[in-house]
Amino acid sequence: MQLDSSGLQVLSTEECFALLSSAPIGRIVFTDRALPAVQPVNFYLDGRSVVIRTSPGSKLAAATRHAVVAFEADEFDTELRTGWSVTAVGQARAVTDPAELDRLARLPLMSWAPGDRDHYIVVDAEQISGRRIVATRPGGAA
Amino acid sequence: MQLDSSGLQVLSTEECFALLSSAPIGRIVFTDRALPAVQPVNFYLDGRSVVIRTSPGSKLAAATRHAVVAFEADEFDTELRTGWSVTAVGQARAVTDPAELDRLARLPLMSWAPGDRDHYIVVDAEQISGRRIVATRPGGAA
Repeated sequence: MQLDSSGLQVLSTEECFALLSSAPIGRIVFTDRALPAVQPVNFYLDGRSVVIRTSPGSKLAAATRHAVVAFEADEFDTELRTGWSVTAVGQARAVTDPAELDRLARLPLMSWAPGDRDHYIVVDAEQISGRRIVATRPGGAA
Repeated sequence: MQLDSSGLQVLSTEECFALLSSAPIGRIVFTDRALPAVQPVNFYLDGRSVVIRTSPGSKLAAATRHAVVAFEADEFDTELRTGWSVTAVGQARAVTDPAELDRLARLPLMSWAPGDRDHYIVVDAEQISGRRIVATRPGGAA
């Protein structure tokens, strides 16, 4: 088990994608008018790409156009104080190709929020990393 | 009930702080070598300030020094497709004042990760905003 400098277990690329695909919600991290911004979204992991549905005029659609963004998902057990997090980083792109739009529209991805959601943002994960917090052993390094 | 352009309920400042104080885990959003970065942390809400414990040499400690960061917490019910998220934005600062360090060390804030965690980062929330997804009514705009 590989640990990072903070004592967290480093996850492999395969584990990262497997955990990411299990999460119902993730958070897209971007810059909005020079300030850090973050928005939770439901998503579908399509191979190594994160697919998000939004409305064409949304702040998210505008702010992520051609931007490098991060996409994070996690799951924690507050009783056991264990959990994992995975972060992918990549270029966000608005899907405009009709054939790709047609394919994405058939994915099992329904937006939770109301309204017109026919705009698709795809984040192709160029980097992915993940960590797991394992329960601290009594007498361990803590 | 005030709705935003995406049909989400806009939360008041008081609701935002109340929900934030109820969350065991949040995510600090910052810039790491010009790329968007995000890290889940446990935290304590001290008035309108988010208090985080980390190690002095951590990437988080280095990257958030004098930086404007976002801090996000959320909770979603995947069955009902409802939930909320709150994001605070403010300047992060490393605590160096001995009296403040002494006070923070007495807060009920234990880091989940192992190792030396005697470095405190405080994010004074200068802006806070939050949204709630309420269940979509059948026949609604979705």
